[in-house]
Amino acid sequence: MSQATYTVQGMTCGHCVNSVTEEVGQIDGVQQVDVDLTTGLVTVTSEQDLSDDAIRAAVTEAGYQLAS
Amino acid sequence: MSQATYTVQGMTCGHCVNSVTEEVGQIDGVQQVDVDLTTGLVTVTSEQDLSDDAIRAAVTEAGYQLAS
Repeated sequence: MSQATYTVQGMTCGHCVNSVTEEVGQIDGVQQVDVDLTTGLVTVTSEQDLSDDAIRAAVTEAGYQLAS
Repeated sequence: MSQATYTVQGMTCGHCVNSVTEEVGQIDGVQQVDVDLTTGLVTVTSEQDLSDDAIRAAVTEAGYQLAS
């Protein structure tokens, strides 16, 4: 099992949290996504290590930006 | 045809706009709902005059507050 934390910019409300959670949750192998709206921290638990590119693509798809 | 403008508090993003538009749009007789996220102004076009209570209930259902 692997866990990593990312910072996502632009989330302003619970709807944004839901969008990010849904998109990141659709990545293969992701088991859990926890989003802290206040800090923008997104903690992803997965079966194996995920590429930053996969996370970035999902966050972008949701309409937000991964902090570099 | 009737048109009225209300101020809604608490909308922070496009998702919020969608929620308010959807809930207010479900009120009987509503033909169009225009939301300005920046100002919080919601303009409702309807077949007949709507009660403030109906608008307030829809806005509350969406998770926001009608300015008094």
